[in-house]
Amino acid sequence: MSLKTIEWKENKVVMIDQTKLPNELVYVEFTDYNEVANAIKTLVVRGAPAIGVSGAFGLALAALQSKAKTKDELLDDLEKAKKILFETRPTAMNLGWGLEKIMKVARKGNDVSEIKESVINTAKQMAEEDVQTNMSMGKHGSELFENNDNIMTHCNAGALATVAYGTALGVIRATKASGKKIKVIATETRPVQQGSRLTAFELKHDGIDVNLIPDTAVGYTMANGLVNKVIVGADRILRTGHLFNKIGTYQIASMAKQHGIPFYVAAPLSTFDLKSNPDDVIIEQRKASEVTTIGGKRTAPEDIEVINPAFDMTPPELITGIITEVGVAKPPYEESIKKLFTANK
Amino acid sequence: MSLKTIEWKENKVVMIDQTKLPNELVYVEFTDYNEVANAIKTLVVRGAPAIGVSGAFGLALAALQSKAKTKDELLDDLEKAKKILFETRPTAMNLGWGLEKIMKVARKGNDVSEIKESVINTAKQMAEEDVQTNMSMGKHGSELFENNDNIMTHCNAGALATVAYGTALGVIRATKASGKKIKVIATETRPVQQGSRLTAFELKHDGIDVNLIPDTAVGYTMANGLVNKVIVGADRILRTGHLFNKIGTYQIASMAKQHGIPFYVAAPLSTFDLKSNPDDVIIEQRKASEVTTIGGKRTAPEDIEVINPAFDMTPPELITGIITEVGVAKPPYEESIKKLFTANK
Repeated sequence: MSLKTIEWKENKVVMIDQTKLPNELVYVEFTDYNEVANAIKTLVVRGAPAIGVSGAFGLALAALQSKAKTKDELLDDLEKAKKILFETRPTAMNLGWGLEKIMKVARKGNDVSEIKESVINTAKQMAEEDVQTNMSMGKHGSELFENNDNIMTHCNAGALATVAYGTALGVIRATKASGKKIKVIATETRPVQQGSRLTAFELKHDGIDVNLIPDTAVGYTMANGLVNKVIVGADRILRTGHLFNKIGTYQIASMAKQHGIPFYVAAPLSTFDLKSNPDDVIIEQRKASEVTTIGGKRTAPEDIEVINPAFDMTPPELITGIITEVGVAKPPYEESIKKLFTANK
Repeated sequence: MSLKTIEWKENKVVMIDQTKLPNELVYVEFTDYNEVANAIKTLVVRGAPAIGVSGAFGLALAALQSKAKTKDELLDDLEKAKKILFETRPTAMNLGWGLEKIMKVARKGNDVSEIKESVINTAKQMAEEDVQTNMSMGKHGSELFENNDNIMTHCNAGALATVAYGTALGVIRATKASGKKIKVIATETRPVQQGSRLTAFELKHDGIDVNLIPDTAVGYTMANGLVNKVIVGADRILRTGHLFNKIGTYQIASMAKQHGIPFYVAAPLSTFDLKSNPDDVIIEQRKASEVTTIGGKRTAPEDIEVINPAFDMTPPELITGIITEVGVAKPPYEESIKKLFTANK
């Protein structure tokens, strides 16, 4: 059975605690939206689509927790919760998208009990839609992959980054399900090691052939013919095709280009930011201890200065195609992305 | 005081145990060449020039340990020790160079006691020469760097990779000593983390400004103007200028080229292999546990397959200059490297 990353169960939010992987598969339950915010911040849950749904579930908890007597009081409580949930991770597009989607539903409601019900139902529906979206993405994406492909992926854009099935790894699952034989090369993805901890874990869990490499071996594996395609997820994609994704994506895309290896991105439409320009996007800087310690063990001298950006930007000229639930965008992206959104209206 | 990585002291080999850094600065003593071989294999000592001298010291211990009565018996013992020492690390050029240099001296000796004495004296002299070589390299290299340079380095080509002072970090030390203000960006260098454990440690120890980044942030720092030069060491350089160095070097050189950032290599003439072609060089594959565990803690699922090459190859077209103790080689390398060796005869 495929992993279920996040679920709404009897008025609780249930999540896999991803900080415990790959050593333990532990589920945690939350009844307070502040706990959900903390879970997003501390990477108990991560991955743009998963934190989008987590934000929505967080607001659903906030609605349940609220002692508001009037619609306005409830909306105030929800706005307060939204702010706390939103500030946990500034770069991923889906968090703001998920929160805003719930707020819109809330604003439309007539009274407290109607709003509470619709907020919870919408959040649950978003979780279900996320899986459907990933299945569609998988179907579109699998057509780009062939028998005997060796596919590199970075970070974790898998079941564990979504409600289930995954974006980039959803495409890999769909490719395998279509009968093609494939091999995956997963980068470790320092500093948080989502590649070794999560991607290697979930692919092995599903019986997909996977090799792990340190992030330093990207160039080596490409130069030695061990990789012929790359697929990654996305935290945010601009209307121009500029991709914001896990730190290290930019250099993988550059090395792929240099070796003539196609570089694909898989992301739902909810990851697109059609308004911002590249300079507008805030790149989250994370704490030094992610780089200086591992599992509590210090691997760098005390007080060393660290540069630890969570994301980098990959320019559109390095991207071969962007796989969404409504089809694949190809360069020039300004046109093709616009077309995907128009077709989806 | 600068760190002394390896030393001959009262018929013992004394080394810093680099596997304990940066948490503890511990010195270990060896009287058996098998212990030296094991120290090279387990990275107690590492860095091409340091393992060249370690090999020589190992043979000096083997000479002391030998109970041979005749020159031939002693040479047999030394050949046996040489084989064991050589097989510890196949890629670094300096190990074979250091061992062969000692064997030549041994073969020239007339009797057992003369050979033992000359072997020990030659090994000690090689250690002293290594420091002199690094100082000369520093002098030549420092002319290529300017005030306010932000210099990226990978792995550890420092005092800890040599007897003292360092190759790439020797150039950085000399640049600073010449009065120029510089900043260093050190990559963590997974899987063995020589960047965070050793480079950050020794630069901080010497009061040189250093920032640590995960290997995934190379592209980010270059794209954001945080780096304007790169310098690395070398494990082997071919007559064509092909560079074999720590895994990850190739992608750093590629990213530097893409951003118009000069990429320099610092290495003594003993690192050059004028005979081999790129395909002849064996790239050492190291054990999976370097990638799957950190400090004893498992960060990847059990039994995951790992690709863990210790080195990669950087082609000459990505290299701006190669700094040696007798001058700087620039493209075309076949000519300029030949010239350095001719001038040095």
